[in-house]
Amino acid sequence: MSKGNINVSVENIFPLIKKFLYSDHEIFLRELISNGTDATTKLKHLISIGEAQTELGDAKIEISIDKDAKTITIKDQGLGMTADEVEKYINQIAFSGAEEFLDKYKDDKNETGVIGHFGLGFYSAFMVADKVEIFTKSFKDEPAAHWTCDGSPEYTLVEHDKSDRGTEIVLHIAEDSTEFLEEGKIRGLLTKYNRFNQVPIKFGTKKVNDPTHEPQTTKDAEGKETTEPHRQIEVDDIINNTNPAWTKAPADLEKEDYDNFYRELYPMQFEESLFHIHLNVDYPFNLTGILFFPKLSQNLDMQKDKIQLYQNQVFVTDNVEGIVPDFLQMLKGVIDSPDIPLNVSRSYLQADGAVKKISGYITKKVADKLASLFKKDRADFEQKWNDIKVIIEYGMLSEDKFFDKAKKFALYPTVEDSYFTFDELIEKTKDSQTDKDGNHVILYASNKDAQHSYIQEATAKGYEVLLLDSPIISHLMQKLEGGDAKVKFTRVDSDFIDNLIKKDENVISKLSDEEKDKLKPIIEAAVPKETYTVQMEAMDSSSSPFIITVPEFMRRMKEMQASGGGGMMGMGNFPDMYNLVVNTNNPLVSEILAADEDKQQNLISQAFDLAKLSQNLLHGEELTNFIKRSYELIK
Amino acid sequence: MSKGNINVSVENIFPLIKKFLYSDHEIFLRELISNGTDATTKLKHLISIGEAQTELGDAKIEISIDKDAKTITIKDQGLGMTADEVEKYINQIAFSGAEEFLDKYKDDKNETGVIGHFGLGFYSAFMVADKVEIFTKSFKDEPAAHWTCDGSPEYTLVEHDKSDRGTEIVLHIAEDSTEFLEEGKIRGLLTKYNRFNQVPIKFGTKKVNDPTHEPQTTKDAEGKETTEPHRQIEVDDIINNTNPAWTKAPADLEKEDYDNFYRELYPMQFEESLFHIHLNVDYPFNLTGILFFPKLSQNLDMQKDKIQLYQNQVFVTDNVEGIVPDFLQMLKGVIDSPDIPLNVSRSYLQADGAVKKISGYITKKVADKLASLFKKDRADFEQKWNDIKVIIEYGMLSEDKFFDKAKKFALYPTVEDSYFTFDELIEKTKDSQTDKDGNHVILYASNKDAQHSYIQEATAKGYEVLLLDSPIISHLMQKLEGGDAKVKFTRVDSDFIDNLIKKDENVISKLSDEEKDKLKPIIEAAVPKETYTVQMEAMDSSSSPFIITVPEFMRRMKEMQASGGGGMMGMGNFPDMYNLVVNTNNPLVSEILAADEDKQQNLISQAFDLAKLSQNLLHGEELTNFIKRSYELIK
Repeated sequence: MSKGNINVSVENIFPLIKKFLYSDHEIFLRELISNGTDATTKLKHLISIGEAQTELGDAKIEISIDKDAKTITIKDQGLGMTADEVEKYINQIAFSGAEEFLDKYKDDKNETGVIGHFGLGFYSAFMVADKVEIFTKSFKDEPAAHWTCDGSPEYTLVEHDKSDRGTEIVLHIAEDSTEFLEEGKIRGLLTKYNRFNQVPIKFGTKKVNDPTHEPQTTKDAEGKETTEPHRQIEVDDIINNTNPAWTKAPADLEKEDYDNFYRELYPMQFEESLFHIHLNVDYPFNLTGILFFPKLSQNLDMQKDKIQLYQNQVFVTDNVEGIVPDFLQMLKGVIDSPDIPLNVSRSYLQADGAVKKISGYITKKVADKLASLFKKDRADFEQKWNDIKVIIEYGMLSEDKFFDKAKKFALYPTVEDSYFTFDELIEKTKDSQTDKDGNHVILYASNKDAQHSYIQEATAKGYEVLLLDSPIISHLMQKLEGGDAKVKFTRVDSDFIDNLIKKDENVISKLSDEEKDKLKPIIEAAVPKETYTVQMEAMDSSSSPFIITVPEFMRRMKEMQASGGGGMMGMGNFPDMYNLVVNTNNPLVSEILAADEDKQQNLISQAFDLAKLSQNLLHGEELTNFIKRSYELIK
Repeated sequence: MSKGNINVSVENIFPLIKKFLYSDHEIFLRELISNGTDATTKLKHLISIGEAQTELGDAKIEISIDKDAKTITIKDQGLGMTADEVEKYINQIAFSGAEEFLDKYKDDKNETGVIGHFGLGFYSAFMVADKVEIFTKSFKDEPAAHWTCDGSPEYTLVEHDKSDRGTEIVLHIAEDSTEFLEEGKIRGLLTKYNRFNQVPIKFGTKKVNDPTHEPQTTKDAEGKETTEPHRQIEVDDIINNTNPAWTKAPADLEKEDYDNFYRELYPMQFEESLFHIHLNVDYPFNLTGILFFPKLSQNLDMQKDKIQLYQNQVFVTDNVEGIVPDFLQMLKGVIDSPDIPLNVSRSYLQADGAVKKISGYITKKVADKLASLFKKDRADFEQKWNDIKVIIEYGMLSEDKFFDKAKKFALYPTVEDSYFTFDELIEKTKDSQTDKDGNHVILYASNKDAQHSYIQEATAKGYEVLLLDSPIISHLMQKLEGGDAKVKFTRVDSDFIDNLIKKDENVISKLSDEEKDKLKPIIEAAVPKETYTVQMEAMDSSSSPFIITVPEFMRRMKEMQASGGGGMMGMGNFPDMYNLVVNTNNPLVSEILAADEDKQQNLISQAFDLAKLSQNLLHGEELTNFIKRSYELIK
């Protein structure tokens, strides 16, 4: 029997890191800046507890490009390393300097977050560089060190005369990565990953007006004033905001601060957000952030992937699938948490206990915020409803806990722009819209224009007609009906007005039963029988002679299938079926009955076409012929 | 100065592999099966060149689960390893056994492809197992070895009495990965990654009728026949097809074989493909595969990600972005290539020279196939056009090389179901559709129903009207117009019939100029002036009195912007503008002029509403009022 240690062959680890570690090479800059940030915050901590005898100064991280030498330099003013520490932290790949540091100071509650694994992040430099140099001087009283490695496992380490504290990393960019020598590329990466970095990042200089010098105004002999131009000075171009809004306490922020932060996050977004939710929790997990409800754009898909995920103010991803519940992915904003395991598969993430808790916490915070907005300023909430309803309705369908909370503030607008909560709606319509069998019928339209004539009939009766036009509303109706056996949603064109909400009233028919029996087959013969079922009904004489209705059940099942997940299988392919309701009390119908055959056919055609127009069912050749016939009629 | 080798600390490599190497843990099974496949094909090769004195037999790979012991076993009958080889290949992480093998036999052209890096793939086992055992017996005359490791860098290696050749890997599944002990899960993974594996994979057994035994039929005393039930035997459940269609020569395959393969790939797909393209190239890169043109589904997005990418018959991904040109991503099928660098970033992939060549090759093969189908059976090609046009038109817009080839077979169907190539169309319409200024006007409609009356007018004149309804067709028109300064596409409702293609004919107006000047302001006053421009035109007296037209330029710019990338900035938000063309030769127009003010207003309203109906512009309250008025007219 033999026993031993598995031996990692270094020759193969470099290509491994290069190819596998990060699928995106650009990550190298984020990793090196994170190391510099750690070195700076660690030093700050050591000073604060008296273990480092030095001044922090306005320590920053400097990035510079030398196109001729083909190098990128990342220089920090952090704690630096002694030669021994270089041996320990750099030459031992995957040795986690940060972990050791945290271990040592774990009882000290003030330690600031430390990102990543020092050694590992550092080696991502070899994804873009074929030679890397480190110049580093520790805050301790020891000589500086100069380390060089060309990507092979061999390195050299010599003393150096660097006198200022901190670490300077020089990347000699490889031939296949020269894109990273472009200023625009690096500026883009800094903006993407580090615009809220904890330590200031300097990238070049810019000219500004000298604040210590006020331009002098002089008068010439004729009394004419001349003001000298502003004196310009060069200052560091600091690319980041080290104290973004989400790191502050909500009590310290005004609405304006949130608006400014929204603009800072999305400079190309011209509209303001509707409102924000400030997240802040440290038990059982750490998470801060600000979520914004945006004005919805037409294209719901483009809305996704707008929430940015940070880890200690360093950008990680804008794909928050699995972390934020689906229905909230249309929000915008920032989430910052050191507790979200990254670099693991999405399915693993979704099963993670901490992540589940985070998702639940965010859902609860959003529901609470909406409830308080509704309570505080209902008129304002109503005004915002059309922009937020899809998110809320989607949430009500997908998360039961959210449904319970949202039921109290979810709104149901009418075609006349009144907004009811569900309970208010039930209360308001209970008496007038309960039918003779005790069903409480909620009427709705999906489109004010397309269903105009049907809406007109219903509102004339004094009924409330809701305007429900979200893509998933049919699913929500189904759920609401499930919660109360007596409540039924019915679209306003699903039956003729007296049948929508049946009362114990009998309208007397002008036509006798014999006359009806005579007329019905004549009309049936004139309309396509596989699509239309003819129905003779005594209605108000002022109601239209012909009305086309679409039964609720089949239509809703088809809609539910079309919007995905629900409805009855196979319904989607069912042909459309309509009822043609003939109003036996309309004078035109009596006229049709009395007319000779030719006239009868003309009247039925024209009335049937007009009924089809009401339901947007007259198209193509039929419409062209109708229009020609109608021109003839008015000539 | 000191010099040394970078030291990889193994304590940290295990978690690294676990977390970073593959974001998806399920990959472990694919990697271990690939190792078994390599071991089997390597042995086969060694036997074929006389370096191994053994029989391959029907070597297969056996997968089994023991739920009680919480183990998964992967057992092959390949070349096995001696204790020394275990030391070399397993104990040295990232030592690529495959590379050494290829190095040794690189002058031998017959070597079959070897996937991956042996050592590295093996260690993916630790993503799901907390202890791994290897039992292995080499084809060489040496004792078997038993290796055990619990995920720490320590391992044990002892002799074992295993007597059959090959390697058996036993994974002791970790607590957080017990999902992999479910038969359904493993069967799913085998189907996903290995259903076309080169070596047969056995997963359990199934019962089948004994083929060596014919059920006996006996007669009883009364002459009644009784047949005994089939005798059942257990056989290996082989889950894969080791010789999928794409690995065969096209000459050896019939249409039926391709149809069967399509069904094998997409068992849930009930419709057949339209046609296939067999890819086969070995210089300057290796690639085989079969692409299918599917019948397009309604939802174009769902169409994507259907092409599966394999490497030596092992599934890699169904995301072929960057490998297959965008416009061909709606195809289905398989691409198999050892030359596509995997595990690199997409942007890197797109810049890779080999990948660019692959993309160009696939584009060319698709264009050639389409050209030959068009030539061989044009009627059949025309019938398929509606299913393939979006792909072809998208290709013409995005790849110039494809445009040049496709110009010869891309079709332009008319509303009467004739299909022209662009050259045929130009030839056919040159005489009748060239206007007095020498512009060659191509008329088209986007919807037969919605533009019915306009189409009717144009076809009555003998013009060809195309039916062009693809979402990106406006971009293609723009490109085609760019290729010939005289050719103009114009939608059939963009002007009144005589103006669509202006000829040197003068239609005399019944109304005098004074009468026109009198009528025009009356009509202008009756229609919304910010939307409609009134135009008095002498047309055929049988043409409609009022016609609403939509100028081509603005409409097309808006459409191009809506479908993305093109058109003129900001056009999308421009309000819709129409012309109201008044036919001064229509009797109704004379009647309007002669009528008293009330009658005049009624006639204009009704005629204007009818014109709006033709353009689907009459909705809501206006439509309801029109219908009421129309019922009154026929009473």
